[in-house]
Amino acid sequence: MDNASRSQRRKPPARAVIKREAAPDRVAAIDVGSLGDHLGYALKRAQLRVFDDFIRAVAPLKLSPAQFSVLILLDANSGRNQAEIAAALGILRPNFVKLLDELEARGLCRRTRSEDDRRSHVLTLTDKGRATLAKATRLVADKHDKKLATLLRASERAQLMAVLDRIARAL
Amino acid sequence: MDNASRSQRRKPPARAVIKREAAPDRVAAIDVGSLGDHLGYALKRAQLRVFDDFIRAVAPLKLSPAQFSVLILLDANSGRNQAEIAAALGILRPNFVKLLDELEARGLCRRTRSEDDRRSHVLTLTDKGRATLAKATRLVADKHDKKLATLLRASERAQLMAVLDRIARAL
Repeated sequence: MDNASRSQRRKPPARAVIKREAAPDRVAAIDVGSLGDHLGYALKRAQLRVFDDFIRAVAPLKLSPAQFSVLILLDANSGRNQAEIAAALGILRPNFVKLLDELEARGLCRRTRSEDDRRSHVLTLTDKGRATLAKATRLVADKHDKKLATLLRASERAQLMAVLDRIARAL
Repeated sequence: MDNASRSQRRKPPARAVIKREAAPDRVAAIDVGSLGDHLGYALKRAQLRVFDDFIRAVAPLKLSPAQFSVLILLDANSGRNQAEIAAALGILRPNFVKLLDELEARGLCRRTRSEDDRRSHVLTLTDKGRATLAKATRLVADKHDKKLATLLRASERAQLMAVLDRIARAL
């Protein structure tokens, strides 16, 4: 469909606009146009919904997906420094510092100056952090993964993970 | 692997840490642990790489994926208001206002007060916005989509898009 015909149709009568504003569930009526063909958009949209479901699953622990990721990486990489963990997650330094501040304030991780390089911070999970990670892992398995399993057969999920990994490695 | 054995291994000698800091490409040595099994992480990782490739493809136009999405939605939904477009893209109001400020400053879109509801802003694409969208669409097809086509067969891409859509609708 060309631009001219797009502009001509869909201009809704004024009252309809007001109605739609009052009822957010009507927002689905927005035409995504060619956006629906873009892989980036499809990935982002699915990722946002999966994150939302993850957040609901771990709601009792108030953990964001990024915080959960950091707890996993600290558990699996004890004694590594801040810059390494941030880089592995692709989180920018100022955002990562804020994230660590929150985790440290909750007693879930600890930052200590590296004895070898005083500019560098070594990160470790506390016992409370390890316990929180264990609880979160159970909630994710019991709620989030079970819901995903109703949507995707095991073979579909494995195939999806393989394709996503191939994309991430190749680009 | 249990937590105790995770903590015991991998503590690198001090010199190795410093080396890794100096060589960011060595960051791959971080163990992602169980994170690699999480669909949300796999989606986010692939999405970040696809967005990076998109940004490279449209570099001459300096458009972010979010800005590109807004241009497409304004083109496909002329005369709709700010709240509707923001909701359709899942962008929070303050971020969306900033995004529109940038697009308007570059002469790509126009905000006008709705005649029916003075609190509401109607959005339209300018001619320059339409021309920029056309150029971006060509760059994305010529560079980004061609690169993706070397990674994914057409049938794989279609299957991936279908699975992502199913996930987004069901959660």
